[in-house]
Amino acid sequence: MKAEYINPFVKSLVNTFGTMVNCEVHRTRLSLKDDSVPRHEISGVIGLSGKAIGTVVLSLSEQVALKSASTMLMAEYTKLDDDVIDAVGELTNMVAGAAKAELEQYDLSISLPNVITGKGHEIRFPSNVSPICVLFESQWGELSLEVGLAEAKVPAATA
Amino acid sequence: MKAEYINPFVKSLVNTFGTMVNCEVHRTRLSLKDDSVPRHEISGVIGLSGKAIGTVVLSLSEQVALKSASTMLMAEYTKLDDDVIDAVGELTNMVAGAAKAELEQYDLSISLPNVITGKGHEIRFPSNVSPICVLFESQWGELSLEVGLAEAKVPAATA
Repeated sequence: MKAEYINPFVKSLVNTFGTMVNCEVHRTRLSLKDDSVPRHEISGVIGLSGKAIGTVVLSLSEQVALKSASTMLMAEYTKLDDDVIDAVGELTNMVAGAAKAELEQYDLSISLPNVITGKGHEIRFPSNVSPICVLFESQWGELSLEVGLAEAKVPAATA
Repeated sequence: MKAEYINPFVKSLVNTFGTMVNCEVHRTRLSLKDDSVPRHEISGVIGLSGKAIGTVVLSLSEQVALKSASTMLMAEYTKLDDDVIDAVGELTNMVAGAAKAELEQYDLSISLPNVITGKGHEIRFPSNVSPICVLFESQWGELSLEVGLAEAKVPAATA
């Protein structure tokens, strides 16, 4: 995966959190994904397809998820109910949507956001894809963004 | 979501397991997803986009994942290492790929398969999407297929 793919997603995450939930986020570290990367409780996942195929994962601590949902929905949320899950999905959708617009040369389309919960969940990429993980901090806690993209090819099953 | 969306995925799963890992699977139950549906340890997830957007989730017990990988790769696998994860991703990719070909009116493209691990992980859909879950049994144990699709719309962030 080319490193320049990641920048539109980083920019999009900073903008989305700044404008949608009034939360300033700062990039702290960029790494190729490995097991030492801190994991958070809630992950929004969205698929990308087009001239490249891949996945965006927006991973939030519970506190960041609850505060984000409370701000977006103008109500106090204290547990991970359907509204909070939808808010995390919508933030993921906005991050992917804005980045896609900047990567127009890849003609990307985005799928539906899913939200993964469960302490200790892991989201694995195919071993031939090296996702890039960017860590952020905010006034509410930590979050991370992971993007893995590969060249598109015709799947064997439909060739 | 229209119920007829699900049939190409069911057929594709039965064919994929029959031809790729020589495993006969039988549908046992179809349900709208709810919390009573048994969950398995390993889930292959792939995004769909086109005239509909959505997600396919292929969820396997550890035993089904290990036996499938062992058959595909002609070696004995006893733990969920990268090879097994890749095999589950590839099975998910084949199930989605063959179903996509049958749903050509929706002009679907598929993203990269990710594999989610972790006991007790949950994969949530947006609350306005009602995924359909189909349960299967096989000689190796249980598996399930979950498909959620929604009408495509232009994401707000790129409008």
